[in-house]
Amino acid sequence: MVNQVQRMDGGSQAPKSDSSGASNSGGESSKESSRCSTPLLDADRADRLREKMKRRIESGDRWFSLEFFPPRTSSGAVNLISRFDRMGSGGPLFIDITWHPAGDPGSDKETSSMMIASTAVNYCGLESVLHLTCCNQTKDQITAHLAKAKRLGLKNIMALRGDPLADVWEEEECGFNYATDLVKHIRWEFGDYFDICVAGYPTGHPEAESYEADLKYLKEKVDAGADFVITQLFFRAETFLKFVKDCRAVGITCPILPGIFPIQGYQSLRQLVKLSKLEVPEAMMQVIEPIKDNDAAIRNYGIQQAVDMCKVLLQSGDVPGLHFYTLNREVATMEVLKQLGLWNEDPRRPLPWAVSAHPKRKVEDVRPIFWASRPKSYIYRTQEWDEFPNGRWGNSSSPAFGELNDYYLFYLKSKSSKEALVKMWGEELMSEESVFEVFTNYITTQPNRNGHKVMCLPWNDDPLAPETNLLKGELEKVNRRGVLTINSQPNINGKPSSDPIVGWGPPGGYVFQKAYLEFFTSSENVTALLKVLKKYEPRVNYHIVNVQGKNITNAPEMQPNAVTWGIFPGREIVQPTVVDPVSFMYWKDEAFGLWIEQWAKLYEDESPSRMIIQYIHDNYYLVNLVDNDFPLENCLWQVIDDMFDLLDAPPQSLIT
Amino acid sequence: MVNQVQRMDGGSQAPKSDSSGASNSGGESSKESSRCSTPLLDADRADRLREKMKRRIESGDRWFSLEFFPPRTSSGAVNLISRFDRMGSGGPLFIDITWHPAGDPGSDKETSSMMIASTAVNYCGLESVLHLTCCNQTKDQITAHLAKAKRLGLKNIMALRGDPLADVWEEEECGFNYATDLVKHIRWEFGDYFDICVAGYPTGHPEAESYEADLKYLKEKVDAGADFVITQLFFRAETFLKFVKDCRAVGITCPILPGIFPIQGYQSLRQLVKLSKLEVPEAMMQVIEPIKDNDAAIRNYGIQQAVDMCKVLLQSGDVPGLHFYTLNREVATMEVLKQLGLWNEDPRRPLPWAVSAHPKRKVEDVRPIFWASRPKSYIYRTQEWDEFPNGRWGNSSSPAFGELNDYYLFYLKSKSSKEALVKMWGEELMSEESVFEVFTNYITTQPNRNGHKVMCLPWNDDPLAPETNLLKGELEKVNRRGVLTINSQPNINGKPSSDPIVGWGPPGGYVFQKAYLEFFTSSENVTALLKVLKKYEPRVNYHIVNVQGKNITNAPEMQPNAVTWGIFPGREIVQPTVVDPVSFMYWKDEAFGLWIEQWAKLYEDESPSRMIIQYIHDNYYLVNLVDNDFPLENCLWQVIDDMFDLLDAPPQSLIT
Repeated sequence: MVNQVQRMDGGSQAPKSDSSGASNSGGESSKESSRCSTPLLDADRADRLREKMKRRIESGDRWFSLEFFPPRTSSGAVNLISRFDRMGSGGPLFIDITWHPAGDPGSDKETSSMMIASTAVNYCGLESVLHLTCCNQTKDQITAHLAKAKRLGLKNIMALRGDPLADVWEEEECGFNYATDLVKHIRWEFGDYFDICVAGYPTGHPEAESYEADLKYLKEKVDAGADFVITQLFFRAETFLKFVKDCRAVGITCPILPGIFPIQGYQSLRQLVKLSKLEVPEAMMQVIEPIKDNDAAIRNYGIQQAVDMCKVLLQSGDVPGLHFYTLNREVATMEVLKQLGLWNEDPRRPLPWAVSAHPKRKVEDVRPIFWASRPKSYIYRTQEWDEFPNGRWGNSSSPAFGELNDYYLFYLKSKSSKEALVKMWGEELMSEESVFEVFTNYITTQPNRNGHKVMCLPWNDDPLAPETNLLKGELEKVNRRGVLTINSQPNINGKPSSDPIVGWGPPGGYVFQKAYLEFFTSSENVTALLKVLKKYEPRVNYHIVNVQGKNITNAPEMQPNAVTWGIFPGREIVQPTVVDPVSFMYWKDEAFGLWIEQWAKLYEDESPSRMIIQYIHDNYYLVNLVDNDFPLENCLWQVIDDMFDLLDAPPQSLIT
Repeated sequence: MVNQVQRMDGGSQAPKSDSSGASNSGGESSKESSRCSTPLLDADRADRLREKMKRRIESGDRWFSLEFFPPRTSSGAVNLISRFDRMGSGGPLFIDITWHPAGDPGSDKETSSMMIASTAVNYCGLESVLHLTCCNQTKDQITAHLAKAKRLGLKNIMALRGDPLADVWEEEECGFNYATDLVKHIRWEFGDYFDICVAGYPTGHPEAESYEADLKYLKEKVDAGADFVITQLFFRAETFLKFVKDCRAVGITCPILPGIFPIQGYQSLRQLVKLSKLEVPEAMMQVIEPIKDNDAAIRNYGIQQAVDMCKVLLQSGDVPGLHFYTLNREVATMEVLKQLGLWNEDPRRPLPWAVSAHPKRKVEDVRPIFWASRPKSYIYRTQEWDEFPNGRWGNSSSPAFGELNDYYLFYLKSKSSKEALVKMWGEELMSEESVFEVFTNYITTQPNRNGHKVMCLPWNDDPLAPETNLLKGELEKVNRRGVLTINSQPNINGKPSSDPIVGWGPPGGYVFQKAYLEFFTSSENVTALLKVLKKYEPRVNYHIVNVQGKNITNAPEMQPNAVTWGIFPGREIVQPTVVDPVSFMYWKDEAFGLWIEQWAKLYEDESPSRMIIQYIHDNYYLVNLVDNDFPLENCLWQVIDDMFDLLDAPPQSLIT
């Protein structure tokens, strides 16, 4: 609570961004994703935030954006990143992250403003705006922050003055005294690289001599090089609409976005009023006071009030997009957006995986399938790849994957506590079959024998994807018998790109998949499987590897196998997912490593449970299978059935 | 006749090559073609001729190769290139071109050995071996020939001594006296770049002291760096088999290919015998003498004799491939190959167009559709493109297409004479409708009103492709009404890659196409068409341009549209044909230019016929249409029908 109040007190308002990766209600990012290997436009220029806004304004397509503040604790950071993924799926044009001078905001700590914004861009694929305040900082410090932000792939800055340290304001000789100074400095040092947002005050800044004087300051900030304005919160639509009119009258022509604050509780409202020196209208207070102890009632009122005000704003024609002060909460803002019809419940995906919003990675359009459930790990392990040649991941054999110890990436830590994991994965394992049961329970979503649901596995931090759900029955059957599946996809023969479950890419297209299955299984099973696979040549491609790297495959040497692709009007073919033999060997290390790092280490050294996991790690094989005949019924289940039949047959069958 | 006799007298025998583009009975070139944008192997090394031979020998897959000599006249050259295309379709591992010291063989004349071999490699996509003789030449001359050959993309040399100018052989001090000297020189100057073939004499070289001495010379040639041997012709299988045995005994381990000479006439056999100093077996002469005046009987006998001998050779297990002295004729050699089952009647195509065999272009795997009927022109106009980035044609906006006057490429000249063209395309054109009739007659293959069949058009040097034949009825209908089609393909939704008409690429795959139609039509028609096309947004993409370059399109800016693609086991997607907006503007110049260069110029200046063609050139538009909805029935015919309906309707319809 302290956090958001600090922010508002500082007089900062938030910028916005387009989740150009994970979701997009407009069509812009589709354009870039459909390019296969022929880069055509300088994506950086056409895709910068101000250009996206411009196109949205021209097309009349309204947007929303979301403001967050950095968390105070590590676990808070893990939760916030999950929230980014969830709220990103609704299709914000951008998010912004506030700057907390007291919290070491430019550091490498996982809770710093800088790192949270970088994570949003790089790992969550969200267009992000980083706040930056200038008072009490030297030019060099500010330049260093900006250079670091650029290096991390951040492209947008909300330029703010911030709060003076002393109660009495003293101008500094060579320092930055106003946001205007910061805007000028950014343009001077970084030219046109950053898109810049500044704050507007619909009722005037509390420290300004007058409303008119404050308008003049805003005009100066814009003239210095700001691209758009986000306002402080306000309680009446007319307050904002008058403000916009006054801005236009003094010659401010850039987009002005209203800051929306859905009231979420009595205490937070009181603190806000105190610190921001805003007055809550009398009529509003008369409604709130009687229900001040009823949190649900207050929140419902806040939602209704915000919806009503936003409707007026949108109908005015002067409001191209809405900016929400979320206070790092989901429910109220999502509800307002849903009621306004701005929440994109079923966002069309430009690609079947979330594109990173890092400028260098925007052109990326193909990835190995192995990291499908661990996209952040993939981005992390390939972050040193300077180029994605021709907009694709290219030849995996040249760029080096990040070291395996890199996978301790902070934001990849399980969202569940050690205690919760032990409950899900077993207090005490009795045998390999106990492990089979954990996998089976994860698939079926049935509680385990101690009554706990298995919500995640070391390789899958989330429940099964809707697409994988299509395979549930088959998956349950094979996991029960020790084919421990960690990744799969059904075959698809030309479904519309708009299909709610498997669709992706621009409208009017068709998407395709080859069936894929990846699992751990015992060496006995592998022996039988290899005999069975001979019958399925060349229909089925396989890679089979153990932790030592013993590798058995029938794949044409070093060639990736495309397993997801799409055909779209007026475009080249897009093939975003491949089974690649080279990267599989890197993935193998990570996949086997997770047995130990995430599972075995839950138990005491030398304990039977730990030894069972260690045994699996040491002796099982990681197998992937592709059925190349995508127009026919998936034969991979038959392959597994044949393997079991062979294992069940009298022993001599294994010799022949 | 003189030519081939000269060649044989010189004691040279021919090497071989794999038409790694147009056709391939084995699977080797499929491997390279299926790579989409991720080059994996050094194609140059794995694909050199000696490696291809090695793989064929290991797999037991027999091959054949064909020897040709350079033509004496320009029209002979045009005919020979057509013959390369026809005989290349049978799947030779390589062809070879003999070297004619008297014919300025290293020059840029279209009849020179060098240019014919270069054309075979670059334009016909045939692996080719260039003969080179060394006697009477300086080291510098030879080095210059070899450097030129390398520059033109030739990779294989048949190293021969050649004939001394004088009747009496005199060793030259610093010159090359034996083929061994030439082999050593090639290796010294060019390292391992060239694959080298040398000649073997199953009955000993006529000038050698003895059979044994000649074997010793052959051993020296091989030890100097030759990769394989082709023998002089012989008349009995046992002659060759004994020779191979003797070669092995003296330590010659490389492949030895028998030179097969199907007897094609009595005179040519006599000349051959005289010049090569070979003896025709008595038993053979007893058959031939009685039928010596019956050409057909002689040829039939020659075919039967060659087939019988080849069967013995192949059954011996010592013969991995057969080399044919074609004497630039097709019938006898093709018949022998067919009877042996070596002629690949229905060659699987690695890509839907013939890949150039030039080392730099091997990795090319995508082309604009516009040059589908003029592939040699496309190769010529893009010959300066140093790289095909990532094995694809890449961004057409950066590399420049060759100048339009380049399209007077010699080998692109029509195979028909001016007189024949006038008969086909009309002695005298009366109106635009006369032109419509020519197009319609070309489609229907019906004789025109003067009884001549229209076998070609300026944009199509050959009759309709089998694939286009599928569209014949519709094409006839629209051409009759002035939609003058020059290129089209049907839509295909996942036919097997082995389909005899539309299949291409490795086995077990599926090929796809979007329907495509390209035509010239009047500006009145275009006005109606544009109104109709609004109804087909975004299903149909179009580009419409006139000779001045006025361009109307609904295509996403500068983006190519993939119109042919294939999905194969264990591979990335291949998309070999695209409709590309940038290259369309280059094609437009060529397509309009052909009206004038090939058609208008058949008539007198100022003649009505010429003015009609000039009018069409100046006023018609070139249109291309793509139906993106490949799984549905092709809608492009409906588009044209709608256009005609609109034109037939009362005039006000055109205004609304």
